[in-house]
This record gives sequence, C-alpha cells and structure tokens, in this order.
Amino acid sequence: MLFRKFFILCFAAMLSLSACKQNQKTGALSASKHTNKHILRFGMVTGLKPEKMEYYKKLHAAVWPEVQKKITECNIQNYSIFLKKINGEYLLFSYFEYTGNDFEKDMKKMAADSVTQRWWKETDPCQLPLPDAASKNKIWSNMEEVFHED
Amino acid sequence: MLFRKFFILCFAAMLSLSACKQNQKTGALSASKHTNKHILRFGMVTGLKPEKMEYYKKLHAAVWPEVQKKITECNIQNYSIFLKKINGEYLLFSYFEYTGNDFEKDMKKMAADSVTQRWWKETDPCQLPLPDAASKNKIWSNMEEVFHED
Repeated sequence: MLFRKFFILCFAAMLSLSACKQNQKTGALSASKHTNKHILRFGMVTGLKPEKMEYYKKLHAAVWPEVQKKITECNIQNYSIFLKKINGEYLLFSYFEYTGNDFEKDMKKMAADSVTQRWWKETDPCQLPLPDAASKNKIWSNMEEVFHED
Repeated sequence: MLFRKFFILCFAAMLSLSACKQNQKTGALSASKHTNKHILRFGMVTGLKPEKMEYYKKLHAAVWPEVQKKITECNIQNYSIFLKKINGEYLLFSYFEYTGNDFEKDMKKMAADSVTQRWWKETDPCQLPLPDAASKNKIWSNMEEVFHED
C-alpha cells in the first residue's frame, strides 16, 4: 500500500503542526528547521511477503495515475519507498514529506478516494506489518527521527 | 557516523549521473523525475549497538557545525536518519539527496575533512553493519528504491 486507512488513526492523536516544530519527541515527524516550517517528514517501515515482492515492485513501477494525483492533492511530496532484505526478511522503508496544514483531514480525504481504496486492496495483502503496527491494525510503523540536516 | 570513508568506494563504481536518470536498476539512487534532474536520492540502512543508542542519539541531536557545513559543501541535502527497533535489533535508516555533479569527488572531499574524520571516530563504533556492508568494510548498506513520487 501507499497510505493506509489506519494510518489516519495512528497520527490523529499525535499530530499537531504547531506542536511539532523542531520537537524531537514527536518521533518520525518534525518540522523542517530551516527551509520551510510547514514540512513534516515521515520515516516508516513495514514487512513485505517474499512471495509478493515481485508483484509489489511491479505495482510500484507503474503506480496508477489516480493514486499519484491523490497523493499530491493530499499535500504529500517527495515520497520514496525502499526495499531491503535484512536477516532473511524483506523490509520496506518509506520516506515522505507533508506540506499541508491538516494532516488528519488530508489522510481522511485520501482514504475516502475509491481508486486509492482499490490500490490498497492490491498492496495491503503484500505486506507484513511489524508487531507494533499489527497490534493497532495498521500496516506501517513509525520510525524515530534522530537526525535531520536541510 | 554520517558518511563513512568506505561509502566512497561503494558508490564509485556504480555512480554515473547520466546513467542514473530515471533508471530503476540503479537501486537506491535515481534522478528525480520532475523537479530536478540532478537530484539523486539515497536510502541506506545499518545496525546500531543497543548500548550505544543513547550516545548516538545524543551526538546527532547536536551535530558538530563543521560536520553540517561539510555535508552542505559536498552537495548533500535533506538528510534524515531514522531509528527503529525491529525483531529485537536496532536499525538506522538514512535518506538523503545529492545535488552535485560528481558524487565520488564530493565524498572524497568529505572523507578528507579532519573534523568529519573525528566525527566518524565517534559514530562508527556505535554501529553494527549488516553482513553485505561488513563484507565490503562499509557501515551502511544500500536499499533498493521501488517507488518515488515527487
């Protein structure tokens, strides 16, 4: 998946743009220090089923245009997903930036998009959430940002 | 560490700006599709010793100004490091962008900087390279980029 419905719930409680500025305690997200106060950076991780790896890569090599459009409309930019086999398991790492003023609202907007929903029906079964995400019925786990240099 | 001396060797063979443009086969690096043809994105991963975690975080919460300056001088931007405990082990994930025209040359310049060398003497002992990096006497392992949306 790119973004997942439960993603919204995960961040709803913790996200406050004003509170996040240069606050390391927010973990994976913090406002950019110099260039733009309104950029929030996210680093996330999840597992990938070995038998679904090729399909996942194929999907993402030609992401549906409507999904791309919705990402942009929801104020997400510079979004990358990386793959690495670590200790015999495939892991996916995502990095993206949020430039809007209401992350929760934008994620709800994304989750309400029918094409994005269909996209998630393809991508969700490929993934193997880590325990902390699975326990919250999520796909992706947050990572803690420990360094940033603009 | 932020950048490591062996990092240079790792990419020297594979890096060719002209060859990397929109070429998924380059793995962790590819040129940005729309905004800037000269941005190369990197996603990397390494391990972190549990007993060094706090020290590593402390170092990166107040990175030495000379190290920051050198990063910028070497055409690295938007550089983040994230931390996550996965299956009982601590992993570090880095994301950064290269905007110059000669990555190998810039990394050599960074490696020649005495302050950066001292910085690496602090950070290298904190890290636990994955087997593929360790076998090449490197710290960080490349990840494969499977998706990007500007």
